[in-house]
Amino acid sequence: MAQSFTLALNCPDRPGIVHAVTGAIFAHGGNILESRQFDDRETGRFFLRIVFETQAAVSALSDAFASLASDLAMDWKVVPTGQPVKTLILVSKFDHCLGYLLYKTRMGELPMDIVAVASNHPANALTVSTIGDIPFHHLPITKDSKAEQEARIKALVEESGAELIILARYMQILSDDLAAYLSGRCINIHHSFLPSFKGAKPYHQAHARGVKMIGATAHYVTADLDEGPIIHQAAEAVTHEDSPDDLVRKGREIESRVLGRAVGWHVTHRVFPNGAKTVVFGN
Amino acid sequence: MAQSFTLALNCPDRPGIVHAVTGAIFAHGGNILESRQFDDRETGRFFLRIVFETQAAVSALSDAFASLASDLAMDWKVVPTGQPVKTLILVSKFDHCLGYLLYKTRMGELPMDIVAVASNHPANALTVSTIGDIPFHHLPITKDSKAEQEARIKALVEESGAELIILARYMQILSDDLAAYLSGRCINIHHSFLPSFKGAKPYHQAHARGVKMIGATAHYVTADLDEGPIIHQAAEAVTHEDSPDDLVRKGREIESRVLGRAVGWHVTHRVFPNGAKTVVFGN
Amino acid sequence: MAQSFTLALNCPDRPGIVHAVTGAIFAHGGNILESRQFDDRETGRFFLRIVFETQAAVSALSDAFASLASDLAMDWKVVPTGQPVKTLILVSKFDHCLGYLLYKTRMGELPMDIVAVASNHPANALTVSTIGDIPFHHLPITKDSKAEQEARIKALVEESGAELIILARYMQILSDDLAAYLSGRCINIHHSFLPSFKGAKPYHQAHARGVKMIGATAHYVTADLDEGPIIHQAAEAVTHEDSPDDLVRKGREIESRVLGRAVGWHVTHRVFPNGAKTVVFGN
Amino acid sequence: MAQSFTLALNCPDRPGIVHAVTGAIFAHGGNILESRQFDDRETGRFFLRIVFETQAAVSALSDAFASLASDLAMDWKVVPTGQPVKTLILVSKFDHCLGYLLYKTRMGELPMDIVAVASNHPANALTVSTIGDIPFHHLPITKDSKAEQEARIKALVEESGAELIILARYMQILSDDLAAYLSGRCINIHHSFLPSFKGAKPYHQAHARGVKMIGATAHYVTADLDEGPIIHQAAEAVTHEDSPDDLVRKGREIESRVLGRAVGWHVTHRVFPNGAKTVVFGN
Repeated sequence: MAQSFTLALNCPDRPGIVHAVTGAIFAHGGNILESRQFDDRETGRFFLRIVFETQAAVSALSDAFASLASDLAMDWKVVPTGQPVKTLILVSKFDHCLGYLLYKTRMGELPMDIVAVASNHPANALTVSTIGDIPFHHLPITKDSKAEQEARIKALVEESGAELIILARYMQILSDDLAAYLSGRCINIHHSFLPSFKGAKPYHQAHARGVKMIGATAHYVTADLDEGPIIHQAAEAVTHEDSPDDLVRKGREIESRVLGRAVGWHVTHRVFPNGAKTVVFGN
Repeated sequence: MAQSFTLALNCPDRPGIVHAVTGAIFAHGGNILESRQFDDRETGRFFLRIVFETQAAVSALSDAFASLASDLAMDWKVVPTGQPVKTLILVSKFDHCLGYLLYKTRMGELPMDIVAVASNHPANALTVSTIGDIPFHHLPITKDSKAEQEARIKALVEESGAELIILARYMQILSDDLAAYLSGRCINIHHSFLPSFKGAKPYHQAHARGVKMIGATAHYVTADLDEGPIIHQAAEAVTHEDSPDDLVRKGREIESRVLGRAVGWHVTHRVFPNGAKTVVFGN
Repeated sequence: MAQSFTLALNCPDRPGIVHAVTGAIFAHGGNILESRQFDDRETGRFFLRIVFETQAAVSALSDAFASLASDLAMDWKVVPTGQPVKTLILVSKFDHCLGYLLYKTRMGELPMDIVAVASNHPANALTVSTIGDIPFHHLPITKDSKAEQEARIKALVEESGAELIILARYMQILSDDLAAYLSGRCINIHHSFLPSFKGAKPYHQAHARGVKMIGATAHYVTADLDEGPIIHQAAEAVTHEDSPDDLVRKGREIESRVLGRAVGWHVTHRVFPNGAKTVVFGN
Repeated sequence: MAQSFTLALNCPDRPGIVHAVTGAIFAHGGNILESRQFDDRETGRFFLRIVFETQAAVSALSDAFASLASDLAMDWKVVPTGQPVKTLILVSKFDHCLGYLLYKTRMGELPMDIVAVASNHPANALTVSTIGDIPFHHLPITKDSKAEQEARIKALVEESGAELIILARYMQILSDDLAAYLSGRCINIHHSFLPSFKGAKPYHQAHARGVKMIGATAHYVTADLDEGPIIHQAAEAVTHEDSPDDLVRKGREIESRVLGRAVGWHVTHRVFPNGAKTVVFGN
């Protein structure tokens, strides 16, 4: 029976890539269902995502792509479409983003296998989320125990086999070391419309400045705080009537939605880091 | 020197189309800059738009595509990217959409060659638009002269060589005959969020129903009034405070934007009729 | 200590209403924090919502307003600001709207006291929501038991003292009798941008028509199905790539948000029925 | 015959203001059509805008308000509703915002009397706007003539009696002296979502940072560049496909709309400066 695969690749641009790749798919009896590509003329890098159906074996496909990839200097992967991504979610006191991700996952909207939830607060601090059977890890942190706590996070990543780590309003600043360790596989939600209002208490900063819109930004974590490649942003109108607390309340909804969408694109292989930016074949 | 071309095609879906098409481009030294495709699994029809650069001659390219097209039963065209589309704009008393299209064209945002503007009202009814050197045709209409007036529209299409006809708030109902004549090359703006509020005075209908959003719809003209394939829609929040006149005012801005965007996509070969619907590779 | 109250009233318009009402508030040592008003010039009806602080006793205030109300033929109420509204939620198989309302209530964003949840499906059909201690009532329905089931709903309203009934994707068509019984205190979410796509399977209707936006509508229930006064609507862009299932998925998010906002405005006394429409002092 | 007036005031908050003001209106036979108010609890300042109809003479009204204003330490004005505001528009090479304002004014959507247009470029640099009979002033500027040129702007403000000055993509940096001179009566459009991307070439900054939305900000001019009180902001999604030129093109539409709306609110007396922020009774 035909099975669906998602191919995601990027490589230096040159003529003939699509022809070569679609040739390999065609040679394995594949039929292309979706295709998106981007040619970054600034950097000369080419990005391609193809969903195709075939009755061929995965191994035969992989061999064919590996050969092409070598010729074309590709970063690439081919995975069964919809295969769940093993995910670790880190959270602090505010668990609305966690609740949203759990809900989307249970509805079948996010192909994720949430292998663990960890928090610097105990489980009973989760007020809106029911994590059910998902393992919960309380990883308390003090000024003196930061290195130790981060070591436990790394261990958790290793043991759980997490491919993706989500900072779902995890309010601790990562050390450079941990940020580097998670780089490329960790998504954070910042509760402002970056680059506006970096750092702490962005809604209070926004209120003080008197802006007429607030927003949220989902980005990959890098060592440079609040400077990682942006995956998704959204914003909403606010007025002079909105107190900082109102902004916090309105912002919760934007944060959840922006993070949920960015994660959804990541786990369906629609996002490619591209230097300090991203290429996103959103839907 | 390399020149850019836009290829737009659709055909019955089968494996290997992209491989074959990109092969033809590659064989002519082409480099693909943009590519968008859609496989309509309901109807089994495949749609493809590719922008590519090549130093090859148009005639060689056309021969290659013609041969492919014959094999694959394609509807297709290849045109120099950005080549202006000859356009006739029909308007009545309200000329805000005309003004918007003229502005976009003058800014270089719409590759159109506006060959004529025609109206059932005289030129001095145009209050906000300056048409400059564009030929203006006053085509008055009465109950008795409808057939004759429509014959003049047809003649104008023929003489001007217009490839696209835009009904920019042209408030006359076309006869079935004229609608059929213009079918597939005529875009209308309807001032409601279709299928809500078909027919006359949609803003007044919307006000009476107490809706909390109003919208506009750009669609291809078919014999079936307000039922043609939709190209673009947008909507905006309104409140109980908005009188019918307020809706008309707010709607003007939505109408202009929706029509402008639909026209922009059409003249850059991003829109494909697909039965009663459209495929739109928007940007 | 000063306590905050919300006054909501409507009456035939005439000069001096605001002066008289604010006079009564001033006379009781009140300070106005928020005020919104609307004068419907079509119907001659006046709507006013005032939030004020005072140290005066409720009884004294009520006496003062009652006297005014009698003079000015007012419909009115004054309630402590933020007082929870007793609410019954009806649901069927899809519980995303229920989950959203529970979440908003637990976050303290909706001043509701959810006195019961009832469904025509058993409790284990709830897949995404944890209702915790809230009483759940399974009210199965068959073609023959409709009258009986609706009698149980009425009994539930009476026993629970519910002031508000929410149809949170409750997929049964109410009888005229039940609709009349609930009229004015029952909010439904319809999964289309009314008046488009009334009736069953609106996302499938939308897909068939090829619209470029989908939406949702929260409205008061009246005997006339899908024709009740609209409280809130929102819409979102979709494309030719969206299957009916994609529309269902995207629509879930819009439905939840639109219903949540409409309910939020209702329970903070910001919505006034106004014939077939509503006046909404949204925030 | 009844005439409509707009009253706009602000003063230190205290109980009884609305009662007193509406009493004065009532005493002059006025009927309130619209009313909006805001009590800034942080600063203790109260803002009120009332539209009312009356048959009383302006002088009688003004006397009544003047007396109240003195008691309550009010900043206030009462003007005939819809009275055009004398406006000077400054522009440089890009005239899309100018074109938009002219269009809105001609459509009757903006109650403005455009007394002059001035530019540091000659009239023939205006590519999309037809200014018709409006006086045009070419005020060239060089590094050495800045002081002199700014003196000519001041003279133009004096001679024309302009109450409002609009910087409609006027690309010169004002001296502190001119900024102070124009303070409180001058609106600028900045082509970014402030406080992101202050200073020059914001679209290029946005492209380099890889943001997923761009925006525009209309604000009052103060001596502190790009830091004036914000009146309105809007933003729109962009993608990795958008080049800096695409952002410039998409941004033009947002800029026009944001500036148009901010100006519309200013000339209908809906905007109140409030320290470093604004109170906006938008519609």
